[in-house]
Amino acid sequence: MKKILLLGAGLSSSTLIRYFLDNASKNNWKIRVGDISEDSARQKLGGHPRGEAFSFDVNNPDDLEREIVAADIVVSLLPARLHFLVAQSCVKNRRNMVTASYVSKEIQKLDKDAKANGVLLMNEVGVDPGIDHMSAMQVIDRIRDDGDSIISFESATGGLVAPNYDTNPWRYKFTWAPRNVVLAGQGGARFYHNGKFKYIPYHKIFERKENIEIPGYGQFEVYANRDSLKYREAYGLSDLLTMFRGTIRRPGFCEAWNLLVQLGATDDSYIMDDSKHMTYRDFTNSFLAFNIVDPVESKLAAYLGIKEDSSLMKQLEWLGLFDDDKVIDHHGYTPAQCLQHILEQKWQLDPGDKDMIVMEHQFDYMHIGSHRKLFSTMVFIGEDQVHTAMSITVGLPVAITTKLILEGKIGLTGVQIPVDKQVYEPVLEELREYGIVFQERDFKLS
Amino acid sequence: MKKILLLGAGLSSSTLIRYFLDNASKNNWKIRVGDISEDSARQKLGGHPRGEAFSFDVNNPDDLEREIVAADIVVSLLPARLHFLVAQSCVKNRRNMVTASYVSKEIQKLDKDAKANGVLLMNEVGVDPGIDHMSAMQVIDRIRDDGDSIISFESATGGLVAPNYDTNPWRYKFTWAPRNVVLAGQGGARFYHNGKFKYIPYHKIFERKENIEIPGYGQFEVYANRDSLKYREAYGLSDLLTMFRGTIRRPGFCEAWNLLVQLGATDDSYIMDDSKHMTYRDFTNSFLAFNIVDPVESKLAAYLGIKEDSSLMKQLEWLGLFDDDKVIDHHGYTPAQCLQHILEQKWQLDPGDKDMIVMEHQFDYMHIGSHRKLFSTMVFIGEDQVHTAMSITVGLPVAITTKLILEGKIGLTGVQIPVDKQVYEPVLEELREYGIVFQERDFKLS
Repeated sequence: MKKILLLGAGLSSSTLIRYFLDNASKNNWKIRVGDISEDSARQKLGGHPRGEAFSFDVNNPDDLEREIVAADIVVSLLPARLHFLVAQSCVKNRRNMVTASYVSKEIQKLDKDAKANGVLLMNEVGVDPGIDHMSAMQVIDRIRDDGDSIISFESATGGLVAPNYDTNPWRYKFTWAPRNVVLAGQGGARFYHNGKFKYIPYHKIFERKENIEIPGYGQFEVYANRDSLKYREAYGLSDLLTMFRGTIRRPGFCEAWNLLVQLGATDDSYIMDDSKHMTYRDFTNSFLAFNIVDPVESKLAAYLGIKEDSSLMKQLEWLGLFDDDKVIDHHGYTPAQCLQHILEQKWQLDPGDKDMIVMEHQFDYMHIGSHRKLFSTMVFIGEDQVHTAMSITVGLPVAITTKLILEGKIGLTGVQIPVDKQVYEPVLEELREYGIVFQERDFKLS
Repeated sequence: MKKILLLGAGLSSSTLIRYFLDNASKNNWKIRVGDISEDSARQKLGGHPRGEAFSFDVNNPDDLEREIVAADIVVSLLPARLHFLVAQSCVKNRRNMVTASYVSKEIQKLDKDAKANGVLLMNEVGVDPGIDHMSAMQVIDRIRDDGDSIISFESATGGLVAPNYDTNPWRYKFTWAPRNVVLAGQGGARFYHNGKFKYIPYHKIFERKENIEIPGYGQFEVYANRDSLKYREAYGLSDLLTMFRGTIRRPGFCEAWNLLVQLGATDDSYIMDDSKHMTYRDFTNSFLAFNIVDPVESKLAAYLGIKEDSSLMKQLEWLGLFDDDKVIDHHGYTPAQCLQHILEQKWQLDPGDKDMIVMEHQFDYMHIGSHRKLFSTMVFIGEDQVHTAMSITVGLPVAITTKLILEGKIGLTGVQIPVDKQVYEPVLEELREYGIVFQERDFKLS
């Protein structure tokens, strides 16, 4: 019997646990799930005979060591900053480990020791990062295997509310961590375009959006991620002329969000005075100059250069930003925290709402002297609010990768991300069975 | 004989040293000047019999202690972060100390020990901070002594090039630390207006300038400083409805500078790729989207919403931002460092140019039921490029305060700033002899 140790049973673990339990008998697995809340772990296991819940605190080194030694493989869904403790113990005790999180500097430093001990630390096998790496690399390797050369790669992903449920003026609801959504773009963006480095400061990111269309799903827009150049070497694309990574929203989101950025409402660098008793209207007014005559609405419209009867204004009004009967009711909040509080009242999923993951890669490449363009797109809609698109697209690739490692099918050691054919081929193949499928369009540009 | 120890003989020390030497015989002073460059210290003393230069490294604790013990008073013009080492030793060895720098958190923590040892650590006695505190407090105390109440206080200072020398399209040249000018405003601004806290994010600061006029000197504009609320308690103005502090520039500066902010050219948070070989035009282009048809000038004008033949565009052109024949020529520079390099080629003082300090306080107050407004303004023009307005307005109040402490006329201990009548009255009185004079206008508003 193979013992899988899963650490962390938070929101995104539901589908991962279901996969492990559904495949447990066939593969003779036992699934041990540790969480700071034993109850939460037990609930997700639903009394399955091959599941076992336990109370787990990663900061207790004896518990951690004992559990890792007793496991055949370790999956960590803990908060990203805690992975290092797990990884360290995995390297020491020669256990392979799988995570859906970005490779941190600390984890990267374990590469040499992990290789020396024959241990695989496989990271970034969720959706973004994860499925994006795998699906992009599959196309990149195929183009190269055909003897063609890639000149441009642009890629974008978004966590959105599914069609028919995007019923508010923003066509957006929170389906991923709200705080990350509020702070998105801070630090600016860097990318590479036609052989030149390009930089966008934070306050211009949402203005410089690009439009895309995904067949069957209509129009979307894309704003630039912080660092598009991060995977140039991992993807073997160091000689590329254009490399861009972005985040997908529905049309109209970026222009309206930019108003909140311009206002200063997303600032997370200072504590506001008396946020406890501040009304939503006070909050908005705090970014506008004093003026005894004009109402807050008129001041805001004039300041941001929009019309008072515009749809942009209606998006802001719909959020409650001009309401004087609701207070932030939390002490010591930054503007970003106040804004998140306001948004959480409005951008929550309603009962029955489903979420959606949208991903698109665009490749320009040269094929026998002609310039071609290839679109590869994936749209996936969640089952419900437990098995969300997010939970499924994170959980399944983590689970499948774990299975492949347990079966000895991955001949890698050290700190890895899933850019190798022996990982992405079988993972993407099995994901297809679950409806996670990339559609391609390929045509001649010149 | 009283021994004055001056640590640091940098650019701003010339006038301070001149005052000490000019007044040395009369007061029976000896002036010992230590600098990392003994040559620099010796030069500034000009062979005066009461001056003595020595090579000094603040990081050598034995040297520091020996010099402080041998002195009657210590003046530190070292870089601000080094004051703490000096202050610590002054407290221990019971020597009073004077600086022109902001009270740091570390210095503030010495307050209790300084008081216990009967030591005075007098800070912020330069121009801004310094003369601004003193001149404002003189008015504030006078209004209060008359039984009137202050309802609003706004104050601004600027280091500028003097009239007749402000011959470039920006009407600005570097007279203070260039790096501080390039980074000004980052972190945003907070102030208090009509009983409400107001916040301005960085990318809106230069757009929200205010205009002022100073009789005899014409129009200026003012942008908000980071924290206008800092001195509310020190000034005894905690019940004020409006408190605002700002920086003064000539008209047209803020609108043009805002273009550089919008572009992202003042960002200091990341290193640019290959700044060594980047031309000024490449630098500008790196913030603009790729476009094979339009020249950089057209792209910039369209992006920033200005006309290609506007005076704003001419301000940018004059800086050389579109030049393709000059390179940054420094490796590993941030955008802000690249921009500073470009500005330093153009905003340097020409031989014969003089600098100017401009300061204005505005008080609203209630006098026997009527609302009155009082303007208090000071303009001071430098002698030359050694005794600049900056060197004079920093050096003289430091020197005069030092003299007053030596004469036993300041009955204070602990960490202080010059808001007490026994400091500001004699300092401001003597500054008048040197032409540092505040003009007042006071009239009834309603």
